[in-house]
Amino acid sequence: MSDPIYFGAAYYPEAWPESERPYDIKMMKEAGMNVMRFGEFAWHKMEPRPGEYDFKWLHEVVDDLAANGIKSVLGTPTATPPRWFLKAHPDAAKLHADGYRMPHGGRRHCCSNNPAYQEACNRIVEAMAREFGDDPNVIAWQLDNEIYSFSTCTCPVCEEKFHRYLEQKYGTIDALNAAWNLELFSQAYDSFDDIPMPVHGWQSPHLKQEWKAFHYQSDIAFIHGHRDILAKYVKVPISTDQMPVNGMGYEEMTEPLDLVMFNHYNTKENIHALPFWFDHLRTLKDHPFWNTETATGWNGSESCVQVMKPIGFCRLNSWLPVALGGEANLYWLWRQHRAGHELIHGSVISAAGRPLPMFDEVQQLSREFAVAKDFLRETKVDTPIAFHFTSLGWQMMGIQPVVKGLGYESALKEYFYQPISDMGLRPDLIGARKDLSTYKVLFTPLLMSLEDGDLGDRIEEWVIHGGTWVVGPCTDIRTAIGTHYIDRAMGRLERMTGSKMLGAMPDGGTYVRSKWNDGEDFGANHWQEVYDPAEMVETLVSVTDGYESMKGGALLQKIHYGKGVIYLLGTLPSEADMKKIVRLVCADVGIAIPETSGRVLAIPRKGDHREGLILMETGNEPATYILNRAMTDILTGKTYQGTVELKPYDVLVLE
Amino acid sequence: MSDPIYFGAAYYPEAWPESERPYDIKMMKEAGMNVMRFGEFAWHKMEPRPGEYDFKWLHEVVDDLAANGIKSVLGTPTATPPRWFLKAHPDAAKLHADGYRMPHGGRRHCCSNNPAYQEACNRIVEAMAREFGDDPNVIAWQLDNEIYSFSTCTCPVCEEKFHRYLEQKYGTIDALNAAWNLELFSQAYDSFDDIPMPVHGWQSPHLKQEWKAFHYQSDIAFIHGHRDILAKYVKVPISTDQMPVNGMGYEEMTEPLDLVMFNHYNTKENIHALPFWFDHLRTLKDHPFWNTETATGWNGSESCVQVMKPIGFCRLNSWLPVALGGEANLYWLWRQHRAGHELIHGSVISAAGRPLPMFDEVQQLSREFAVAKDFLRETKVDTPIAFHFTSLGWQMMGIQPVVKGLGYESALKEYFYQPISDMGLRPDLIGARKDLSTYKVLFTPLLMSLEDGDLGDRIEEWVIHGGTWVVGPCTDIRTAIGTHYIDRAMGRLERMTGSKMLGAMPDGGTYVRSKWNDGEDFGANHWQEVYDPAEMVETLVSVTDGYESMKGGALLQKIHYGKGVIYLLGTLPSEADMKKIVRLVCADVGIAIPETSGRVLAIPRKGDHREGLILMETGNEPATYILNRAMTDILTGKTYQGTVELKPYDVLVLE
Amino acid sequence: MSDPIYFGAAYYPEAWPESERPYDIKMMKEAGMNVMRFGEFAWHKMEPRPGEYDFKWLHEVVDDLAANGIKSVLGTPTATPPRWFLKAHPDAAKLHADGYRMPHGGRRHCCSNNPAYQEACNRIVEAMAREFGDDPNVIAWQLDNEIYSFSTCTCPVCEEKFHRYLEQKYGTIDALNAAWNLELFSQAYDSFDDIPMPVHGWQSPHLKQEWKAFHYQSDIAFIHGHRDILAKYVKVPISTDQMPVNGMGYEEMTEPLDLVMFNHYNTKENIHALPFWFDHLRTLKDHPFWNTETATGWNGSESCVQVMKPIGFCRLNSWLPVALGGEANLYWLWRQHRAGHELIHGSVISAAGRPLPMFDEVQQLSREFAVAKDFLRETKVDTPIAFHFTSLGWQMMGIQPVVKGLGYESALKEYFYQPISDMGLRPDLIGARKDLSTYKVLFTPLLMSLEDGDLGDRIEEWVIHGGTWVVGPCTDIRTAIGTHYIDRAMGRLERMTGSKMLGAMPDGGTYVRSKWNDGEDFGANHWQEVYDPAEMVETLVSVTDGYESMKGGALLQKIHYGKGVIYLLGTLPSEADMKKIVRLVCADVGIAIPETSGRVLAIPRKGDHREGLILMETGNEPATYILNRAMTDILTGKTYQGTVELKPYDVLVLE
Repeated sequence: MSDPIYFGAAYYPEAWPESERPYDIKMMKEAGMNVMRFGEFAWHKMEPRPGEYDFKWLHEVVDDLAANGIKSVLGTPTATPPRWFLKAHPDAAKLHADGYRMPHGGRRHCCSNNPAYQEACNRIVEAMAREFGDDPNVIAWQLDNEIYSFSTCTCPVCEEKFHRYLEQKYGTIDALNAAWNLELFSQAYDSFDDIPMPVHGWQSPHLKQEWKAFHYQSDIAFIHGHRDILAKYVKVPISTDQMPVNGMGYEEMTEPLDLVMFNHYNTKENIHALPFWFDHLRTLKDHPFWNTETATGWNGSESCVQVMKPIGFCRLNSWLPVALGGEANLYWLWRQHRAGHELIHGSVISAAGRPLPMFDEVQQLSREFAVAKDFLRETKVDTPIAFHFTSLGWQMMGIQPVVKGLGYESALKEYFYQPISDMGLRPDLIGARKDLSTYKVLFTPLLMSLEDGDLGDRIEEWVIHGGTWVVGPCTDIRTAIGTHYIDRAMGRLERMTGSKMLGAMPDGGTYVRSKWNDGEDFGANHWQEVYDPAEMVETLVSVTDGYESMKGGALLQKIHYGKGVIYLLGTLPSEADMKKIVRLVCADVGIAIPETSGRVLAIPRKGDHREGLILMETGNEPATYILNRAMTDILTGKTYQGTVELKPYDVLVLE
Repeated sequence: MSDPIYFGAAYYPEAWPESERPYDIKMMKEAGMNVMRFGEFAWHKMEPRPGEYDFKWLHEVVDDLAANGIKSVLGTPTATPPRWFLKAHPDAAKLHADGYRMPHGGRRHCCSNNPAYQEACNRIVEAMAREFGDDPNVIAWQLDNEIYSFSTCTCPVCEEKFHRYLEQKYGTIDALNAAWNLELFSQAYDSFDDIPMPVHGWQSPHLKQEWKAFHYQSDIAFIHGHRDILAKYVKVPISTDQMPVNGMGYEEMTEPLDLVMFNHYNTKENIHALPFWFDHLRTLKDHPFWNTETATGWNGSESCVQVMKPIGFCRLNSWLPVALGGEANLYWLWRQHRAGHELIHGSVISAAGRPLPMFDEVQQLSREFAVAKDFLRETKVDTPIAFHFTSLGWQMMGIQPVVKGLGYESALKEYFYQPISDMGLRPDLIGARKDLSTYKVLFTPLLMSLEDGDLGDRIEEWVIHGGTWVVGPCTDIRTAIGTHYIDRAMGRLERMTGSKMLGAMPDGGTYVRSKWNDGEDFGANHWQEVYDPAEMVETLVSVTDGYESMKGGALLQKIHYGKGVIYLLGTLPSEADMKKIVRLVCADVGIAIPETSGRVLAIPRKGDHREGLILMETGNEPATYILNRAMTDILTGKTYQGTVELKPYDVLVLE
Repeated sequence: MSDPIYFGAAYYPEAWPESERPYDIKMMKEAGMNVMRFGEFAWHKMEPRPGEYDFKWLHEVVDDLAANGIKSVLGTPTATPPRWFLKAHPDAAKLHADGYRMPHGGRRHCCSNNPAYQEACNRIVEAMAREFGDDPNVIAWQLDNEIYSFSTCTCPVCEEKFHRYLEQKYGTIDALNAAWNLELFSQAYDSFDDIPMPVHGWQSPHLKQEWKAFHYQSDIAFIHGHRDILAKYVKVPISTDQMPVNGMGYEEMTEPLDLVMFNHYNTKENIHALPFWFDHLRTLKDHPFWNTETATGWNGSESCVQVMKPIGFCRLNSWLPVALGGEANLYWLWRQHRAGHELIHGSVISAAGRPLPMFDEVQQLSREFAVAKDFLRETKVDTPIAFHFTSLGWQMMGIQPVVKGLGYESALKEYFYQPISDMGLRPDLIGARKDLSTYKVLFTPLLMSLEDGDLGDRIEEWVIHGGTWVVGPCTDIRTAIGTHYIDRAMGRLERMTGSKMLGAMPDGGTYVRSKWNDGEDFGANHWQEVYDPAEMVETLVSVTDGYESMKGGALLQKIHYGKGVIYLLGTLPSEADMKKIVRLVCADVGIAIPETSGRVLAIPRKGDHREGLILMETGNEPATYILNRAMTDILTGKTYQGTVELKPYDVLVLE
C-alpha cells in the first residue's frame, strides 16, 4: 500500500497543559489529519538547564499521537536557544549594523558563525537524534526553522570569517583589487583584513554580493552540520523548512538533504507565486517536497490579523503543493497560541479549542487526499519545458537591478512564467545545477551571469545536441562577481549566435519601438538590448523607430547552433508577445498547446502505469479547458469531455 | 457672583524684555482675557545656578497682571531643567533605544525615573510652592507639561525599575513565564533581571504591554510626587496639562489632581476628535476641566506653519470645551516667540506685537463668555448614555490591533461615537473606574479586556439591576495582560449571555454577509464575531452568506439578564446600522432622539434651576435641529422655534 | 584664433589596462572631443604608499591625449584617500550622528576639519602641482569633487571647532543666549562648550542654522586651502566641481577660484532646473563657467539605470550651458566602468567599448560647437533683469520653511523664474554680493533676511538711484540668524515703503481672496502678507474676502522711493498674475517683451561687434517665437523671418 498524502499542522505541546492533549488529538482526528510537526522551538523544555535533558514529555506526545494514528515530524530547536545560553555567551547574539545585539525573546537571534552557538546546537541536535533516531513514529526531521537572513550579522566572528572567505576565494589582495576594479575611488585594499563589511556608506556592488554570498554559505554550513549529526542516527528523511527569499543558494542547501520543506503565507493577492514556487521545488530533489507551513485562513504575525482569504481558498491552497509534485500539506498552526507572539494567527482550531470557519474545507481535503492518494503516488508531473531560476541570478539582480525596480523573481513571474502557465503549459523551474537532458525547450531570461559552475558549458552542449534555447534579455551580461565584460557585451552569447549587441538601454518602448516581421507591433518593457541583424541569423522582431543607430536592429533573432536553435530575445515582452514566442517555439519542437481561458492551471501527471491531468482554477473566476479525450474526476467520479467549465477555485483530478 | 469662564493664553515673560510687558498687558485687555498661564519652562530664570533662586521677576509678572485684572496660572518648569543640571548629572538624560542620550535643548529629555532629576524637580517645585503658595492672584497650578512618552527611556535605572515592577506584579519568574506562555520560542526567563527591554528584536506582546504600562506608571508617579509637595502649600486647584495619546492611565493620573488640563491642536480636518475628548474629560473629575492649549489660527511646531483654519473656526474651537463641560479656554500662545523653537506658531499677537487676523473672533469670544457665564456656571452637561473609553483598552489594542490598522480611539470615534453624536445625542465617554449608576445605556465596544479592576463585576451588577448594555465587538476577548482565554472565547460574556462564539474572523462583510430580521442588509466592517443563535436569546441580525458553519449565526443578539438587557454585537457596524441599533436601544429605555441634519452637536445642559441646550455646527456646512419648544439664544437674544437653521460653525446657547 | 568650446568627458585611465588607451583615444576623436577630465579619484594610483608618488602613468595619459589633440583637466584626488590613510588615522573618518565612522570604500568619507586629513590632502595637491603645474596640455584644474554635506560630521574635532566658531561669532555665551532667546525652555548655556550638535532631539532653528553654516564654511576653507597651494604652481584656471544643493555659500566658495564648474544629472522631468542654474552660474565669475558633468543618456548611481532620456535630449542638454554663458560641456563618463560603483551609468561608450545609442548626437554637437565657436566666444548673455537667489536665503528657508513644504529653490523656480523665462525674457539669477548697477529691474522674492553683508543697504541705494525693485513675499522677515524682529514686521521694508504689514498667514487664497484694481481675480499661493493700504502708496491688488481685519488690505503695492520704484508683493502669485506683474514692470522701464508660445528659451547674446539670439525648445513640444528682424541660423545657414517654428528640442543660433 502506498504512503498517504501527509496532511497535518504545526503543534506546540510545550506551550499547553498536558490536560489539553486528549482534546487536541480528538479534534485532529475530526479534521482528518495524519501528521503533526513539533519540537522546533522547544529547546528550553528539552534542556531546561545546560546539559540536563528532558525528553519524557516529547516521547509522550509522539506516543499519544501514534496511538491515534498520527505520525510525527520532529524539529530541532536551534532557532531558539534558551535564556541560559545567551547569558553564558552574550557575544553569540547577532550584532546588528546599528550597533546593538539582538536580544533574547525572538527567533534566529544568534549568529550562525559563532562557535559557542554552533556547539550548543550540535549538542541538542545529537541529544534529540539519540533519543528519537529510531522511533518508528517519527517519519521525518526538520532542522532549525526558516534560516534566511534579512539583516546580516556584523559581529567580529563574521567579520573575520568574511575576510578568510575572501582570501580563500581570491588568493591575494591584489587579485581582489583587480577583479573588483579597486583603483576606482582609490578603494584598493592593502590586506583582506582592511575590507569593511558593507553595512554603512556607499559600497561596491561586488563587495555587497560577496557579503551576501558569505552569509548564505554560513547559514547553509550551519544546517549541513546538523544534518551530518542527525544522519548518523536516523533513517527517515531530513530537511530544513525554508521560506525562500532573496536568493540563498537553494540547490547548495538542498544537496545533502533528503527532501525540500517549504513554508509560505501567500494570499489571494499573490497566489500566482505558488505554482511558480512549486514548479521549482519539485525539480530540486527526486523525493516529493513538503509544504510544511501555510495558513488556513489568515496570517497574523504581529499580534493582528491580516487579509482574510476567500471561501474555497484553503482547499485550493492546500491542493496546490500536492498537485504540483509534493506529498504533504501542513498548516501553521494547529491551535492558536494562547499567549505570546503571533497569538492571533489563522489556525485549524482557536485558542479556546473551537474549529475555525474553514474547518469544513480542512475535512474535505483530508477526504479528497485519501481518495486521490494512489493516483498522486503513482504519477509525477511531467514536462518537456524548463525555465532557469537560479540563486546567483537572484542575488546579482538584487544588488544590480539593471533597471530601477526590476526584480528577478517578480519579473520572471510576470513577464515569462505567467503567460506560459496561463496557456495551459507546465514548466519546470530549474536551478543552475539541474541536468537539462530531459527538456526540449529551455528559457533563460534575466540571468545576468552564466558563470555559475559549468552552467554555460552545459547549456551550450545541450543546444548543440538539439535543444531549443530561448535566451535573454539581461542574460550573460556579467561575470560571476557582477562585473562587465570589456572585450564583448556578453560572456558567450555573441560568440554562440554570431550576433552582436548594438546597444542596451533602459527604454520600455517609449523611444525605441519595434515590429514583428509580419508587421505586428511588438511590446517591450523596462529594458532593450538591440542586436546586429547579421546575415547568418534570422531576425523576427526589428526596431522601426528611435535612435538612428538602433533602427533595423533586432530584438528577437533565431539562430541555428549545432543541432539546436537559439532564440535571442532583447527585452521583457508584452504578455501577447511572450505567448506568440511560446507558440513559435512549441511549433518548432512539437509541443501541443491546449485551449484554455482564464487562470486555469493544467498539471500533466504521468507514471509508469497511469496518466492524468489536474486542473485548478486560481483566479477565483470561471475558466475553461478543452480536453482532447474523455476523462474522469477522481474526486467526484464525474466524467468530462470537450470543454471543462471550472468554477472559481475548482480542483479536478482527471484520469 | 459666579466665577468667570477663564479665557487667556500661555505667556512667556522670561523670553521678553521687561519693557514689552505694558504693551502685552494692554493687548491682553483689548483681547478680553482674564487669565495667563506661565512659568512652565522658565526653570533657568527661576534658578539660574543650583540652589540660587530668583522669583522677583515672576512676582512682578503676577502682580502686574493682577493690577490689570488678569489672574495667573503657574506652571512648574520640570520639563526643562537648566543646563547646569544635565552637566552635573549626564546620566539623567533619557537613553534612546538607538544608544544616544537625549541632549539638552528640547523638552522632557530627562528620565522620570532618575533620582537626581526627581530630587532637582522636587526642590524647584517646593521653592515655587513656598514662594507663591498663598498668592491670591494665582488661581491654579500646572505641573510639568505634556508628560507622555513616545519614545521610552532605556537607561539602567529604567531597566532595573522595570524588573522590580515585574517582580512586584508576578512574584516569581515562573509565574511570569507561565502567564506569558514563555515555553514558546524557549523564551522562559531564569530571573527577572534577564528580561530585555522590548526595544529591539521581535518581542512578546505581553512584554511590550508591561513595558508601556511601567513607563506610564513612572510618569504618573513623577507627577503625583510633585502634586504631594505642592498640595502642602497651595489651596487652589492643581493639575497637569496633558495631550492624551497612546492611552496612558488617565484615570490613575487624574485621581489625586483637582482638575483636568488638556492641550490640543486639532484642525478642520480632525475637529471631530474634539467633542469626543471633551465628552470624556468632563467625566474624569467633578471640577470643570480646562482647555489649556489650542491654536488660534494654525500650528507650527517645526519652524513652519501648517494648515490654516477656516474663518470662524477659532470661535467654534474655543466654544467647544466650554460648551461641553469645561470652564476655561486658553490659547497657545499669547505672542509668537521672537526666536527659538516654534517661532512661527499661531498666536494671539505676532512677535512684532500685531493682532493676528482672527483677533476679532478672540474679542467676540471674550464678550460671549461673559454674557453666557451665568448659564454656563449654573448648568452642567447631563446625559443618560455612556460609552466606555479606557486606558487599558487603548494600550492593549495599540499592541494587539486584532485586525491590521484597527485603532481603538479612531475606530471608537468613527464607528460608534460619531453616529450617535450626529443623531443629536450626547454620550459621556467614561473610563474603567467610573460609576455607572446614573446611566441608563452603556456601550462597550472594542474593549479587549474587562479585567480592569472590578470593571467586569460592576458592569454585571449594573445590568442585573436594570442597565441596558450594548457590548462588543472585540470585547472581553483577552485577559488583563492580553492573553487568550483557553476554556472559553470570552471572559464572562458567554456565561452572561448564554450565547457562544461560533467563530471570529477578519472579514468586513466580503465573504460573510448578514441581514436584519426585517430583511434589511446589515453592514459589517473589519472583523466579525458570529454567535450561536441559541434558544434563550433573541437574534436580531443573522449571517446569510459565507462559510457553512457560520450561516444562521448571529451578529447581533438581545439577551435579558437580571432586570437588564444585553445587546451582543459582533462587528463594527455601518453608520446606518449603528444608528438603527441606537434607535432600538433608545426606544427600549425611553430616550427621545431629536431630529437633526448635518453635523450638529447638541449639548443638553441642566442645573438646579436652569436648563438649556447648546447647538454647534461642526462641519462648516449648514445644518438643522428641530426644537421641541421655543428657546432663546443667550448670545444674541434671538428666539427660535421649530427648525433651527445653523450656519457653518454656528454656536447657539439656547435656554 | 579664439579658444574652442570645450567638449569632452570624465576619463578613468587608472581603472583600465593601458592597452585599452589607443582604442579609447580613437573613439574620443570619432566623438569629436577636445578635452578629458581625469585624476579626481586616483590618489592610490598616484601615491600607492605614503609619500611614494607615481605620476608616470598620468604623464603618459596627458601626453597621449595631447598627441591626439585632446587637452587635459586634472582633478585633485582628495575626495578618496587611499586605504593606508584611514588605517593610520581612523579618527579622520566622518563620525555619523548614529555613532559609526564612515568606512573606506566610498567618497568624501573623511572629515574636512581633521588635521591629518588636511595635511595628507595638502601634500598630494602640492605633489600634483609640482608635477603638472607647467604642463601646457593641462588647461584647467579641478579641486576635490562635489564637496557638499548631506550628513554633517559629528566628530570631536568638528564639535570643538563648532564651539570656537560660535565663540568667534557671538563673543560671549550670554550674547548667544540673548540672540537665540534661550531663556525659552531653559535652554541657556553656561559656556560655548555646552552647546550640543543638533543631530538628536528637538533643537533650536538658530542652532541648526549655525551648525549648517559652520560645516559649509569648513568645506569652503578646505577647498580654498588647496587652491592656495595650487595657485603657487599653475597659471591656468582653478576651480572645484560642485553639485549645488542645500545652499552652501556659493559666492564665498567661488570668490578666490577662477571659474565655476558645475555637475548636474537633470532629466526630461526636471530640465526646467537647468536654465535656472545656468542663469545663475554665469553671474558668479567673469570667466565663462564649465558644465563638468552631465549624463549622455541616463543616470545610474546605484547599480541600476534610471529614467531614459528622449531622443534629442542629449543635444539640447549639452547646448544649454554653452548657450547660457558657459564654455564647456563634459559628460560623466567617457566609458562605463567595467566594475565597481555606478557600473551601469550612461556614458559615451559602453564598458565593451561600443558607442551608446546617442553617439550620433554627440558627434553632431562637436560639429555644431565648432561651427558656432566664434559667435559664442565673441558674445555674452546680456540682460537688464535680475533675480536674487542667495545662499543665506536657501539655508534659512531650509530650516524655517515658513509654510510646510515650501522650498526656496523650487518655489523661486516655479512661481517667479519659470513664468518670466517662458515670456521669452532672460533674467540673471544673482547672489547677495553681486553688483546691481547694470540692472534695471530686480526681483527679490522669498529672501527671508536682507541682513547678508551690505545687501540691504546696496539694494536701497540702487533703488534710490532709479532701480525698480519687485520685493516679497517672505522677504526681510528675519534677522541674519533667523529670528523675528520684534518692533516691526520686517527689517527695512516697512520703513522704505511707508506701508505696514497687517497680517501674514498660511493661506493660498482659500479664505483670504483678492482682486486687481481692474477687477480681475488675483491668485495667491501658500502664504499671504497683507499690507496697510496707506495713502502714500498705490495699491494694485486688494483683499476682497476673508477676515474682516484683512479686507481692503493690499497684496501688491507700488511705491516711489528716491528715483526708483518698489513693487511690494505679499504672496506667491499664480502664473498668469506673475506674468501680469512682469508686463507692468517691463512697461515701466521700457523692456520689450517678445511674442512666444510654448517652452521656448530665448537667450540674447551681445558682444562688441556681434549680436544674436539663441532659441531653444525645452518642453519636447512645438513652440514659436516672433523675430523682429530677419536672422540666420549659424548651425544650418537657414534664414528666419517673423514667426520661427521650433521643433521639439530645437536649437537655433541666430545672428
